[in-house]
Amino acid sequence: MIVSQPLQILIEEFSKLPGVGRKTAQRLALFILGADKRYVSNLSQALIDLKEKIHFCKNCFNITTEDVCEICSNPKRDAQIICVVEEISDLFAIEKTNDFSGHYHVLGGSLSPLSGIGPDSLRINELLSRISKNNISEVILALNPDTEGETTTLYLANLLKNYDLKITRIARGLPIGSNLEFADDATISNAVISRIQL
Amino acid sequence: MIVSQPLQILIEEFSKLPGVGRKTAQRLALFILGADKRYVSNLSQALIDLKEKIHFCKNCFNITTEDVCEICSNPKRDAQIICVVEEISDLFAIEKTNDFSGHYHVLGGSLSPLSGIGPDSLRINELLSRISKNNISEVILALNPDTEGETTTLYLANLLKNYDLKITRIARGLPIGSNLEFADDATISNAVISRIQL
Repeated sequence: MIVSQPLQILIEEFSKLPGVGRKTAQRLALFILGADKRYVSNLSQALIDLKEKIHFCKNCFNITTEDVCEICSNPKRDAQIICVVEEISDLFAIEKTNDFSGHYHVLGGSLSPLSGIGPDSLRINELLSRISKNNISEVILALNPDTEGETTTLYLANLLKNYDLKITRIARGLPIGSNLEFADDATISNAVISRIQL
Repeated sequence: MIVSQPLQILIEEFSKLPGVGRKTAQRLALFILGADKRYVSNLSQALIDLKEKIHFCKNCFNITTEDVCEICSNPKRDAQIICVVEEISDLFAIEKTNDFSGHYHVLGGSLSPLSGIGPDSLRINELLSRISKNNISEVILALNPDTEGETTTLYLANLLKNYDLKITRIARGLPIGSNLEFADDATISNAVISRIQL
């Protein structure tokens, strides 16, 4: 197939995106070919901006353009409660429900010995140091209800027993084996509200 | 939901792509967030390059980085046969088969009076002028077998009658690997009517 070099390159770059196969990549590239020039330059700039302007909040590892994210720097939020999540997308999912007004801690994954992800690969030390330094009253463990998430929940609950605080886990309103990121708002709300003490 | 500005912007730009909804756009943007910086800058550059380096072949309206596309400038291809297609993606589809070695003409769509697409919106004059100027022996009409494509095929066939050349249309019948039992009536009718002698 004779496809012009720049189109070929864009198709290849697009097909590296998750869930985008060869055909979809071609469809997207042909859309770009016919798209408004301003849109394409906006998209191109947005890609660069995301990588250049965004970094992790030094406190909770949410993403931010500042030193500390909007959640951590919001005085209306309860800094004594930390909700521990695996990924930033989980943080977004909980934020969307508007049912939680504490702070977060993004672990960066869950324990998975088979994939070589041990406690040192996660931001567990950073969590413990936050708890030691600040006056934390409750840690909510909001990890995915799958094997790795459960393992991580138990591991963290065990570690946190040594601290004087309430340890809770979001309720198993979420179906086992599903994914927090894709759960509906009502399910996530319920899970947050009916968290149980460990 | 508190999402950093640059991430929000990228999600919005991604969700303007065809077939990409809000959730997919968020997933893609989060992928970009965690992706290799070089990949993101390559993708960003590929988008700009496609818009800046590519234009239409002045002959057949395929895309090219030169004045005339690789197909039109290839001396091994038969310039006397023109295959008329609706879109560039149709050209790619035919090229991929390696069964056609003539030239193309990309119309830019098909006649659709309801959407306001008349003969003047398509590159029909350009096709007629190519036929007048060059020594064309055959025009293959390879438009989509839908209402608009059929209308366009009949319209073009009628126009081309005035020229001394062979006018053909790509065959309509059962797709390879399909099942006669589940084919629609129109397809079976066409397959029976345009049967070929073995």
